[in-house]
Amino acid sequence: MNLMAEPAPAPAADSRSAGPAGAAGSAGTVETQFLDLPEPLRLDCGRELAGVRVAYETYGTLAPERDNVILVCHALSGDAHAAGFAKAPPAESTRDGFGAEDRDGTAGKGLGWWDGMIGPGKAFDTDRFFVVSTNLLGGCRGTTGPSSVDEVTGRPFGSDFPVITVADMVRTERAFLDALGIGRLAAVAGGSLGGMQALEWAILYPDQVGAIVAIASTHALHPQGVAWNSIARDAIMRDPDWQGGDYYGTGRTPEAGMGVARMVGHVTYLSGQALEDKFGRRLQFADDIRYTISEPEFAVESYLRHQAASFVKRFDANTYLYTSRALTYFDLARQHGGSLERALAGVTARTLLIAFSSDWLYPPAASQDIAGALRALGKPVEFEIIEAPYGHDCFLLEEARQTPIIRKFLEGSS
Amino acid sequence: MNLMAEPAPAPAADSRSAGPAGAAGSAGTVETQFLDLPEPLRLDCGRELAGVRVAYETYGTLAPERDNVILVCHALSGDAHAAGFAKAPPAESTRDGFGAEDRDGTAGKGLGWWDGMIGPGKAFDTDRFFVVSTNLLGGCRGTTGPSSVDEVTGRPFGSDFPVITVADMVRTERAFLDALGIGRLAAVAGGSLGGMQALEWAILYPDQVGAIVAIASTHALHPQGVAWNSIARDAIMRDPDWQGGDYYGTGRTPEAGMGVARMVGHVTYLSGQALEDKFGRRLQFADDIRYTISEPEFAVESYLRHQAASFVKRFDANTYLYTSRALTYFDLARQHGGSLERALAGVTARTLLIAFSSDWLYPPAASQDIAGALRALGKPVEFEIIEAPYGHDCFLLEEARQTPIIRKFLEGSS
Repeated sequence: MNLMAEPAPAPAADSRSAGPAGAAGSAGTVETQFLDLPEPLRLDCGRELAGVRVAYETYGTLAPERDNVILVCHALSGDAHAAGFAKAPPAESTRDGFGAEDRDGTAGKGLGWWDGMIGPGKAFDTDRFFVVSTNLLGGCRGTTGPSSVDEVTGRPFGSDFPVITVADMVRTERAFLDALGIGRLAAVAGGSLGGMQALEWAILYPDQVGAIVAIASTHALHPQGVAWNSIARDAIMRDPDWQGGDYYGTGRTPEAGMGVARMVGHVTYLSGQALEDKFGRRLQFADDIRYTISEPEFAVESYLRHQAASFVKRFDANTYLYTSRALTYFDLARQHGGSLERALAGVTARTLLIAFSSDWLYPPAASQDIAGALRALGKPVEFEIIEAPYGHDCFLLEEARQTPIIRKFLEGSS
Repeated sequence: MNLMAEPAPAPAADSRSAGPAGAAGSAGTVETQFLDLPEPLRLDCGRELAGVRVAYETYGTLAPERDNVILVCHALSGDAHAAGFAKAPPAESTRDGFGAEDRDGTAGKGLGWWDGMIGPGKAFDTDRFFVVSTNLLGGCRGTTGPSSVDEVTGRPFGSDFPVITVADMVRTERAFLDALGIGRLAAVAGGSLGGMQALEWAILYPDQVGAIVAIASTHALHPQGVAWNSIARDAIMRDPDWQGGDYYGTGRTPEAGMGVARMVGHVTYLSGQALEDKFGRRLQFADDIRYTISEPEFAVESYLRHQAASFVKRFDANTYLYTSRALTYFDLARQHGGSLERALAGVTARTLLIAFSSDWLYPPAASQDIAGALRALGKPVEFEIIEAPYGHDCFLLEEARQTPIIRKFLEGSS
């Protein structure tokens, strides 16, 4: 598909919901669309992947010059539905992209995972930018992943899905945008694994990215983060229902292990202080302990079990494994001869890094490393640390404080 | 058994290994002994537990006045073998009580989990004190626990084992010492859950404890710690081989879930910096990534899997569940009408609290709370924060730095 040869995709956003210019409004009602890549992808592992489908959404209007495109990249458990209201809301909300709360009670209405950031007058202002969001390669929400049918065998990939990298995700996004007829991007933005994609974009395609916004992200996850991800994956793979990854169609899915993986992840997305403030040591079901091993007692236990139960209904275990592996593999220095500066040497994009003081999974120090390397190279970089108590989840929760920083940064973008 | 009526138990330590007075030596070769409590235990949950057996070891010599006894209490995964060389070393070492390293290569020789702290000239000086160590109630290393045979049914307790508290552990220790003919203790000491027992001793039996040493401990685990423990227990209970807790004799044990529980625990026992220093992002098996989902890649992943495999061979999953539950239930304020000061109001023991700067599972702040409450009550308390990088494991690793503090504190004890 090429936008030059076909009608430009109608802005999917229902502009009726948009407020006056400058005031933050909704991206409106949106529907996830799908695009099949015309060519096979060459992957880092050496394999080719043919017949890749990409699920995507767009918000705002593509300028005639096609120079106002911002690509938004999601994190481990997200999807293409980044903003607006889903036309057909899924039964299980995806708004708890990480551990983020449904603070505004809109999750049941299918609000996008970064709705507070994308829309008219918002950080990624759809009055000005054409925002594109895709489900990442290996995903389970419309883009080809382990649960997709392999066109060669006619069966779901399962354990035969190739092990992918963040660069492979970015190559998929590049091929997808090519097919859409979009060349240079005004910006690429994302948090966590999404921020890794933004960084990889600036490195892989320096001529094609005007700016990147990498939030609560890193150039290489620290060893404790590697450990948590490893434990989460192990929990899935030790579940006998995982069946070596080939559980599709067996009537059994590794929900038990996935639940544990989600709970491990969830605690790492929050700060200890956030758990203290929200739950403390409050008992959930009685005034005193009930002397039970199998039932939850504390509010925090009950909450984690609820999060696990909700997540396993909407997410594929193999996608969790592949995506988690990709984000632990991501290591810009290792990928470039052991030097972060060498990795960033070709970057031409203006860079905005945002980190959160209480984020212990993607701590500010990692963004500081990136900022330092870029500065040493004489490249334009802005680095903001936001003091906020919610841990890694801040990138989904602290929308109001990120917005002016991002809007100001993007003023210079076109 | 009453020591007044029988020969005093021979000091189990083999004094041949002991060095000259004042120099640190070994507690020698020891053998775990067993004692059956003569009376049933009344538990916090309201149930009675009859036929309780206690596994124990002793180091040093009981003074004729029986006034030189120190009780040492172990943490979640420990046992009665606290010091010296086991007469019959288990195939799997218990020296990795938490995540502690076998730094001196003696683990295979069955060295006790706190050997660096107990012996002639050591922190708990067996030239002076008669040190007693028991396996805690609910344990799986000789003391009655879920894997023990219920004398009523003739079958292992399994899921019928009563849910126990730290106070129940302490009552068991009190009854055991009564049976041994030991009344007042010079001191009770322990780290982590062991420190909780020391605190509970000072509260339950104020007239019978001269001093307590609570290391890397707390009056109530913080919510994130509650969460980690909850996830670890869930990992066990979600393993189909757990079978509701009644897996004994079925030929299946929840090793998969136990392994995940152990890995979660292990990461919480170490600091992020310790993982950084020890493993970094080093790959274990090759110079570059191998694009594998199921195999470990990073040294830290490989290490965690090894720890899990080693642990499941030597530890019972139900003991993990019951002990973990007890330590999350422990909450001195809740147990005493919501006030930590009220909980400690009757304490007469001199108190030494030691915490470690990098311990994020049992952070110094909790010991600070206890010290503050004791000071407010006008009670004698010493509180030391040791700057050390290893996290919660410091209480097993930083023996050299704890030793002078503890020796000095115990100078005033008899």
